[in-house]
Amino acid sequence: MLPAPAHSDRLTVVLVSPRNPLNIGAAARAMANFGFTRLAVVAPFAPHWREARSAIGAPQVLRQAAECTTLAEALSQCSLVAGTAALARRKPQQPVVSLTALAPILKHEFARGGRAALVFGPEKRGLTRDDLSHCHLLVEIPTSPQQPSMNLGQAVAVCLYELAARSLDSGESAEGISAPIAPRATSETASSATLDLLAEAIDRVMEAAEYSPAEMRSANHHDVRLLLRRLALSAPDARRILGLFRRIAWRLKH
Amino acid sequence: MLPAPAHSDRLTVVLVSPRNPLNIGAAARAMANFGFTRLAVVAPFAPHWREARSAIGAPQVLRQAAECTTLAEALSQCSLVAGTAALARRKPQQPVVSLTALAPILKHEFARGGRAALVFGPEKRGLTRDDLSHCHLLVEIPTSPQQPSMNLGQAVAVCLYELAARSLDSGESAEGISAPIAPRATSETASSATLDLLAEAIDRVMEAAEYSPAEMRSANHHDVRLLLRRLALSAPDARRILGLFRRIAWRLKH
Repeated sequence: MLPAPAHSDRLTVVLVSPRNPLNIGAAARAMANFGFTRLAVVAPFAPHWREARSAIGAPQVLRQAAECTTLAEALSQCSLVAGTAALARRKPQQPVVSLTALAPILKHEFARGGRAALVFGPEKRGLTRDDLSHCHLLVEIPTSPQQPSMNLGQAVAVCLYELAARSLDSGESAEGISAPIAPRATSETASSATLDLLAEAIDRVMEAAEYSPAEMRSANHHDVRLLLRRLALSAPDARRILGLFRRIAWRLKH
Repeated sequence: MLPAPAHSDRLTVVLVSPRNPLNIGAAARAMANFGFTRLAVVAPFAPHWREARSAIGAPQVLRQAAECTTLAEALSQCSLVAGTAALARRKPQQPVVSLTALAPILKHEFARGGRAALVFGPEKRGLTRDDLSHCHLLVEIPTSPQQPSMNLGQAVAVCLYELAARSLDSGESAEGISAPIAPRATSETASSATLDLLAEAIDRVMEAAEYSPAEMRSANHHDVRLLLRRLALSAPDARRILGLFRRIAWRLKH
């Protein structure tokens, strides 16, 4: 038995477009097993989502889950976003960490006053390239090369077990990280919502400045999102840069 | 990605009377995910077992699983048996270890040349008191007191993730245990089959000696089984004691 992990209310489990109601239920049950309470579901397949939510014995966590239209909406409060991905299929653009190294990273973020999200893709295809551009890092569950792809409910259980067991609260295994216990307002990490605002402002500037041909805009937008996450901006710095780009955009238009 | 854990062929996953074919399939998939191959199923509900086994995409591990009538049969080759149990309901009679401490214990057993089993009970009721009497130790998955009971497929995934990630092969976290790498024939642990033979021989002696009233025999048998597992007998010692009790039994009858 373990108490609810410290800061467990600072971690949101995000399921992107889950299909199978059994998997949704299993993910929610694993959250209850390991003491996590914040679930967000992005663009679920409506009939299955209703079915999962109204199932007899559906855990509390499922009944109070947030339903979001976009991944950006689900992540808006989060300053650290970790995506889960079967990496065999694509070359990752973010740092990849093993699940065994995730607990100290989250602990560090929580100690700074941040909020984190752990994002799981749909059963068949996993997270898309666009989904991944919202992530600061990718988490790899160490699985066998012969059968790397896990069932969604089992993947959620394994990740939350690891975080609860390598507790977010105990001093265990936070090697090399000396995190302050009290949040430091000055170093609070920028939230995903702030980074999205900033990316938009930069986009508008790039467009107004005719930085690149129209057909490159989507690729640029993607690259900017990734870049902003690599910078690990503090919230005040993000606001400063946002002010600058808004000013530039206004200038370019007038 | 990880290679198959060293000694992974020395660990048998045992499912006792599983009901739900989806759970059987999920357990087998988790085994494939984490590189384990030996599955034994005890007294499965026949129609569901057939269904799980013949499902499209059923992993190899399911198709080559051993089907046993009794738990004793499934464990006969094993020298260390770890049962999983929701401990809230009963007072355990064996040592209880957290799942986070299991990898070094198994590693030690494998280094001595032993074989181990990880036993999971049926979905609704878990392992019975009788099932548990075949176990040397109980493994506790650290779950929340509010929702301690895990789904079977998820419990298997979490246990095998832990064993694969805190690898049975690497030097990691085997604190305080200096296990020889090569099996030492003289200290090989007695198998469950040997312990069962010994328990039977002791039973016959107790009966022949009228050690206790008839109505106590079942309780005595249970206690003997547990006692033998606490002793952690070597195989040669178990054979010696067995010889002794057989001799005593013969004497008492003639």
